[in-house]
Amino acid sequence: MISLSAPLKKPVILLANGEFPVHHLPKYLLDNSETIICTDGATDKLIKYGLEPTVTIGDLDSTKLSEHESPGLWVPAPDQNKTDLQKALDWCIINNIIEITILGAGGIREDHALGNLHILAEYQGMVELKMVTNHATINCEQGNRTISSQPGQAISIIAIHPVESITVSGLKYPMVNQRLLPSSRATCNEALNHEFSLDTSGSVWLFMNHTD
Amino acid sequence: MISLSAPLKKPVILLANGEFPVHHLPKYLLDNSETIICTDGATDKLIKYGLEPTVTIGDLDSTKLSEHESPGLWVPAPDQNKTDLQKALDWCIINNIIEITILGAGGIREDHALGNLHILAEYQGMVELKMVTNHATINCEQGNRTISSQPGQAISIIAIHPVESITVSGLKYPMVNQRLLPSSRATCNEALNHEFSLDTSGSVWLFMNHTD
Repeated sequence: MISLSAPLKKPVILLANGEFPVHHLPKYLLDNSETIICTDGATDKLIKYGLEPTVTIGDLDSTKLSEHESPGLWVPAPDQNKTDLQKALDWCIINNIIEITILGAGGIREDHALGNLHILAEYQGMVELKMVTNHATINCEQGNRTISSQPGQAISIIAIHPVESITVSGLKYPMVNQRLLPSSRATCNEALNHEFSLDTSGSVWLFMNHTD
Repeated sequence: MISLSAPLKKPVILLANGEFPVHHLPKYLLDNSETIICTDGATDKLIKYGLEPTVTIGDLDSTKLSEHESPGLWVPAPDQNKTDLQKALDWCIINNIIEITILGAGGIREDHALGNLHILAEYQGMVELKMVTNHATINCEQGNRTISSQPGQAISIIAIHPVESITVSGLKYPMVNQRLLPSSRATCNEALNHEFSLDTSGSVWLFMNHTD
């Protein structure tokens, strides 16, 4: 796979081909990035938006552009066993990019959106990763954490695999040493203050919904 | 909880408060339903669309209507341990409604959309249930099944919990007695013909993406 001779500038955005950023938070992150890595057809959306991709990667069957029409590095990655988002993250790891914000990975097809959440979980230990959609900032969390929040902010916690024990304080509906199965049970919670604490034995998706 | 004195007419639609139907398939199902059960704010969207709810159910903090402004049965269900979609499904079960199509349960907030997929899985054994979004028809499947498809139709299979053994034939990327963990691994598959077969020891979400 094509790699880099010099490090890419931070902050690094990985733009997937789901719902394009329209909320001001992911738009701000996109507008203020120094490097934008696009998966396949996301490069067309980015150019239409008025920005240029630093890298375009994937099986390149969604983009209407050819290598010569697209600015930046063009990285064909035809592996059918991985999604374009996985290929882009693999490329980032090979190129020593360790802090990435994923945009454009929510919405549109439900199977892709759910698949992207699983990819967020799979790569969490390998790179510092968060996903910002038009509705929420999504992280995977495990262990003891104190997390900044806005009073009244809508928070959901969904187990990725069965979690033996989770304790949450500082939210409207606290939990103490509870078992949490993958389900809708801990959706629709709410931050009471400017931070809350989370202690979980297994990895969970933490959805911090935007406050405006 | 308020229940019915006479059975509701089929087909029964349960309209959730996510992305409202705009694709012709869920719109057709909505337009040709005999009973529409709305969760909370979905009743406002339905009335704006030009139809009337048969029942409105939920904690009723999202709807801008009051009981007297809304047509149909008004069922307050304030339980904070369940989502409005769960309350509506519980109400259907109490009222002996055994075949339900859920619309409006995809898109918008990612935590709600994922929670709704888990609810689809949880209620699958209790009622005959499918979800139709603007992108796909989504079922939960377990055991040996033959499923109708369109050649070229985009199909994804995502394990809800670890599946010990899954065999799939008739898709572009077949599987034989494989273990399938909850992941993005079996997304982006494709039907080869007018049916395919699926044999799975554990329950999976089957995403049959719309062909147009």
